Amino acid sequence: MRMYDIINRKKMGQSLTREEIRFMIDGYTKGEIPDYQMSALMMAICFQGMDETETLELALAMRDSGDVLDLSQIDGRKVDKHSTGGVGDKTSLVLTPMIAALGIPVAKMSGRGLGHTGGTIDKLECFPGFSAELAKEQFFQNVNQVKMAIMGQTKELAPADKKLYALRDVTATVDQLSLIASSIMSKKLASGADIIVLDVKTGSGAFMKQEADAFALAEEMVRIGKNAGKKISAVITDMDQPLGNAVGNSLEVKEAILSLNGLGPADLMEVVYALGTELVLAAGKADSQEEAEEMLKQTIKNKTALDKFAEFIEAQGGEKRMVYQPELLPAASIQLPVTNTQAGYAAKIQAEEIGQASLLLGGGRTTKDSSIDLSVGILLNKKRGDFVRPGDTLATIYASSIDQAKEAYGKIVCAYQIQPDMPEKIPMIKGVVRPQAIHGGKAP
Amino acid sequence: MRMYDIINRKKMGQSLTREEIRFMIDGYTKGEIPDYQMSALMMAICFQGMDETETLELALAMRDSGDVLDLSQIDGRKVDKHSTGGVGDKTSLVLTPMIAALGIPVAKMSGRGLGHTGGTIDKLECFPGFSAELAKEQFFQNVNQVKMAIMGQTKELAPADKKLYALRDVTATVDQLSLIASSIMSKKLASGADIIVLDVKTGSGAFMKQEADAFALAEEMVRIGKNAGKKISAVITDMDQPLGNAVGNSLEVKEAILSLNGLGPADLMEVVYALGTELVLAAGKADSQEEAEEMLKQTIKNKTALDKFAEFIEAQGGEKRMVYQPELLPAASIQLPVTNTQAGYAAKIQAEEIGQASLLLGGGRTTKDSSIDLSVGILLNKKRGDFVRPGDTLATIYASSIDQAKEAYGKIVCAYQIQPDMPEKIPMIKGVVRPQAIHGGKAP
Repeated sequence: MRMYDIINRKKMGQSLTREEIRFMIDGYTKGEIPDYQMSALMMAICFQGMDETETLELALAMRDSGDVLDLSQIDGRKVDKHSTGGVGDKTSLVLTPMIAALGIPVAKMSGRGLGHTGGTIDKLECFPGFSAELAKEQFFQNVNQVKMAIMGQTKELAPADKKLYALRDVTATVDQLSLIASSIMSKKLASGADIIVLDVKTGSGAFMKQEADAFALAEEMVRIGKNAGKKISAVITDMDQPLGNAVGNSLEVKEAILSLNGLGPADLMEVVYALGTELVLAAGKADSQEEAEEMLKQTIKNKTALDKFAEFIEAQGGEKRMVYQPELLPAASIQLPVTNTQAGYAAKIQAEEIGQASLLLGGGRTTKDSSIDLSVGILLNKKRGDFVRPGDTLATIYASSIDQAKEAYGKIVCAYQIQPDMPEKIPMIKGVVRPQAIHGGKAP
Repeated sequence: MRMYDIINRKKMGQSLTREEIRFMIDGYTKGEIPDYQMSALMMAICFQGMDETETLELALAMRDSGDVLDLSQIDGRKVDKHSTGGVGDKTSLVLTPMIAALGIPVAKMSGRGLGHTGGTIDKLECFPGFSAELAKEQFFQNVNQVKMAIMGQTKELAPADKKLYALRDVTATVDQLSLIASSIMSKKLASGADIIVLDVKTGSGAFMKQEADAFALAEEMVRIGKNAGKKISAVITDMDQPLGNAVGNSLEVKEAILSLNGLGPADLMEVVYALGTELVLAAGKADSQEEAEEMLKQTIKNKTALDKFAEFIEAQGGEKRMVYQPELLPAASIQLPVTNTQAGYAAKIQAEEIGQASLLLGGGRTTKDSSIDLSVGILLNKKRGDFVRPGDTLATIYASSIDQAKEAYGKIVCAYQIQPDMPEKIPMIKGVVRPQAIHGGKAP
């Protein structure tokens, strides 16, 4: 078997076999197949695509390129959740303690990631002492006892995907649905959970700008998960404006704690309930969506989710009391309101611009070695559809330096579009993709 | 400017600018742009193509990546000839002394190349002492005095093309018309001749199997040459069976000498006259095709071309007397006739199979460091359209070992297709592509 022939066959529009896909992923992981052949193949795939079987085989081959976590030491059916990423997305921080409070074991692997803010683990590090560097045994034990634990992704998890993604990132071959789907799913499959819910974002602040593309990606991922024997579904959610009001690490943790106290922003909570319902149903804890949602709401009302969050933080070494006294979490020294000049409705809040403002403030990473300022960020005082008067505060900047605050100010002003007419309401939940069919939304 | 954006723009189907093409070729030559980005771009070009301007700019950028030969020290308008390659192609050996005999200066650069037989320079090394390693001054002087010289391609000639071709060769990105055209033309433009004739082969033994593709390639190359200020035309010729009767280095040299003595095979001479006519007209030495062809024929009749060839061999250190006594040229020790078993007409002689037989005999290179056996090869006793009886000799193998001869035998038997009916005659000259328009053939 020769890599040349694999490239050529794909270029001609043919389907690759299981053996060809294994050969190429194994060879690439071992360094036997050079980057220049792999990037040519990736570009050919961008033009010719991959069919259902190829996509599954690629995900499985990348899963098997490293360790596949065996969670059998954890009792019950383990759940995991994945988001394709967006600005202000603190869903995991709210959702996972709610699920764990219902006795469903959450065994989650998380990355740090590059981006506008840190990843879930960075955010959790707002609690002094918190660590996601758990040994496997500790991770299993925590899930068994607390019903939730979050562990950093090990280097041994799908190393082929890591290497391939880095190559795609510099060769303009990232935006191909089957490649994206198999990349995400290779890691999810290697993490070993039985039940997976995917939050596929769409809109100007998401990777998938078009709703049809988001549905297509969701379908590809759900198909892979199903074929790999997982209980899986995907919820397609809006990312045309940032999710919730807080963007930035400690600001988002505080918003998550507010949410667990019943004070969550409506848009965030809508997403949390939609994802949570999928998990509760898949775990067999409820018979209907209504029942599942009601159970989730109870965990907020009776504060079991908040207590679960505190228990979880403590189990991983963090200071539990800050869950009940969030005012002790990192806070930026400078607060600068962004003032509105024009009467009208907030019609659009460009999520990407807000994300870049957060990055300018030091809240995210530009390279994988950058350090993050956990205290900085942006609080959106006005969201889409709100009426604003000149002089109103649109948003508040939390910064560590005046220069950074000034730079962010311009970005945030540009992010807001004010118009005379009230904008149409955009639904938060575009639809759900389940293995059997597509529900509640239009298919692409 | 970033290579990433260049890849992405081409992937999206946009045209690259002159600056982008220069940036990418300069960066790649210097090693600043990695292979993996360049191969992704090449694959994107295979799908999206390049327009006329891009193709020209790529050829010019690759030309300028190394030395551009200044031939101004040679009097008159210098001519060069290039063939896209085929089996038994000894056209240059016959054509160049005919042109030089008419007083038109031939300043030709030649490669050694990989393939079924050696390149023109390998063939000329059948003359003991012959060398193509001329210093520039010597090359200029020879053309001025003898009216012809052939020099080996220097490493400094279009190094970007050399590096890029090697990459395309292992990434399945060779077969794109604009890339092929700009690759060939970058070297031709760097060689500095004023008048260029291209022999674009088509048929089973050629790179361009389809006539329409050959015309398209010819047009791309003629367009580049014209836009770069050259007098240029292309003749599309048949390569469905080997050209002439001889395949193999010294066998081809002997056939060339026979041709210069007026005993050339009809198909070879038809190609020689078609290419020669283009050069004589472009050099302004004749007013019509008929006149040009008659002048060329005279150089055979009055032996001036033969004498010119001898003069040229001597000027580059070779033994002149062998031009007049070709029996002294290298000859293989073993001669094995390939016998026909079936009555009928030779309907096809697969050029690629014959070429592979020559390679098996040791007549060509498989890697650039292989040595060549100049004495071996195949003489085709029967060509397409000939009637053959059982027991007739189809071809004669010239070998240095019995084992190699046996191996080649099978290939040659397979190459011949014998059928009851006389095959249709295939024209040798499919057409001519000149800058103004396409003459004498159908456009693709």
